[in-house]
Amino acid sequence: MFFEGSEKKATITIDNTRLSLLNDFDDDFWHLLVEQCQAKVLSKISNQDCTAYLLSESSLFVWHDRFVILTCGTTSLVNAIEFFVSKVESNIILGLIFQRKNEFFAHAQPSCFNDDAKILQQYFDGQACRFGSLNSHHNYLYHLNKPLTSTHINPSYELLSYQISREASAILCQPNLTTDLVREFLRLDQFLPNFSYDDFVFEPYGYSLNAIAGQDYLTIHITPQEHSSYVSIETNLNLMPLLPLLLDILAPSSFDLIAFNAPEFSALTAHYIPAPYLSHQVVASTLSCNEHVDFASFIKPTQQPIAPNALKI
Amino acid sequence: MFFEGSEKKATITIDNTRLSLLNDFDDDFWHLLVEQCQAKVLSKISNQDCTAYLLSESSLFVWHDRFVILTCGTTSLVNAIEFFVSKVESNIILGLIFQRKNEFFAHAQPSCFNDDAKILQQYFDGQACRFGSLNSHHNYLYHLNKPLTSTHINPSYELLSYQISREASAILCQPNLTTDLVREFLRLDQFLPNFSYDDFVFEPYGYSLNAIAGQDYLTIHITPQEHSSYVSIETNLNLMPLLPLLLDILAPSSFDLIAFNAPEFSALTAHYIPAPYLSHQVVASTLSCNEHVDFASFIKPTQQPIAPNALKI
Repeated sequence: MFFEGSEKKATITIDNTRLSLLNDFDDDFWHLLVEQCQAKVLSKISNQDCTAYLLSESSLFVWHDRFVILTCGTTSLVNAIEFFVSKVESNIILGLIFQRKNEFFAHAQPSCFNDDAKILQQYFDGQACRFGSLNSHHNYLYHLNKPLTSTHINPSYELLSYQISREASAILCQPNLTTDLVREFLRLDQFLPNFSYDDFVFEPYGYSLNAIAGQDYLTIHITPQEHSSYVSIETNLNLMPLLPLLLDILAPSSFDLIAFNAPEFSALTAHYIPAPYLSHQVVASTLSCNEHVDFASFIKPTQQPIAPNALKI
Repeated sequence: MFFEGSEKKATITIDNTRLSLLNDFDDDFWHLLVEQCQAKVLSKISNQDCTAYLLSESSLFVWHDRFVILTCGTTSLVNAIEFFVSKVESNIILGLIFQRKNEFFAHAQPSCFNDDAKILQQYFDGQACRFGSLNSHHNYLYHLNKPLTSTHINPSYELLSYQISREASAILCQPNLTTDLVREFLRLDQFLPNFSYDDFVFEPYGYSLNAIAGQDYLTIHITPQEHSSYVSIETNLNLMPLLPLLLDILAPSSFDLIAFNAPEFSALTAHYIPAPYLSHQVVASTLSCNEHVDFASFIKPTQQPIAPNALKI
């Protein structure tokens, strides 16, 4: 069974001198927003700085001045953005980043990135670009032309791991998998002490985790099936020093890093990415909204032939 | 302007003790077959062993015992196979290989590989498999379970080059491009002396070449636009010793090799692929139809950041 693990993502920043996303919008609002893209809220955790909703298709994090929503599968995330836009005064929105990663099964999606960007352009003055080559891993990005002030510029990191090791797939696809087993496998205690967790094991396969501590967040989404495996980890913690551990656990055959406003991205990748991984795409830009984006794609060279994948017709 | 350069391909082998594809089927038949997949014949060259049709979307080569058809864009190649099947007795078909390469714009295709395989499986007893990982370059392949005898096992080689150098794109996208200019750029005289050529420059971009000499063939299809460039070269000549020259001319950022029934594939790739290219996927198998397939995907490592691609909305 194949599942599109690859996410769409939206980050919306608002003027929180006029409105607080945490205080002025209730659970019902966020449930309704999530339903717009054919996903639903499974559970939530919260503290005074952040509420994290675990979704049937990924995650939603809400802070006072911004929210981040990630959805996978065949969801239409752009509908959730349209819903939000219809509920607030337009000048309250200071920033919007909308991203779509390259998909495994693009033909099964209800829209392509350009369709989505066209919808967003009806509401905003924005620009679209692609980080990474069309024939390889890439990330489509739509952003506003309006510069964000430095108080609203936040660092965040995404690690997108493709084709994790056969052993990792087998552990994560085992029958009767529990959240405890996955937490142990991911060695969460080693890199997320003091975080509140909310996690879920999906049927027949899949695992999602939200973790928060104050304003900090980390989310993990796992599509573990051996020949279409995909694990995404996103956080505002500095992910770089954690890469050796995470790559040791997952052992993907390739992975991408996407960082927003991350200091010393190239120096840190050079320092922390272990052999034998090699970068074959590096893309960087400071966008007109003042956010700086780094994208790098890594592969593991091999000369050992493997068998093709038999497919059901 | 984007164009899907990536090809679908079918190879059909028949029992030529009962029928000759060259003698018993006329031009009208092949024109009609080509029209089934929404392409058309532009021109042809022929000798006593082979007829090569240049198509509006790629190429068709016909020998006495087999034909190979490649089509790109949004063509439905499977319809041409259905047409052929409807015109011959079923036991005359000894072999069928149907391939689809990973596409740049899968969402714009009228079908996915699995849809096509389902149609073929109505007529044949076949199997489907994928050479290469879903998240990277890959080649879908459908083949019959019937073993081909050695007289019908032919070697062939495909070089699929992605993102050729900016200089190569600029030369191949220049206004008033002529077939002579492309032939010179490709240094055809160096590796195709004694071949008959038939080639065409498309508007606004694109170039196709068929070349034949006796039973030998070579075909080149170029989609030169800088950010979605793709050049495919297919031949039954031993392509391996030509790789250093071709990679020097095109300088792609990545490329794939697919070889059918090629002796010493790994030794020859190790010998002929120049630095800094590295293989990151190698897949090999002898199929139940007796054909041996090798697939290898190569990239050029880089640590130099480039800018993202601006996209029109």
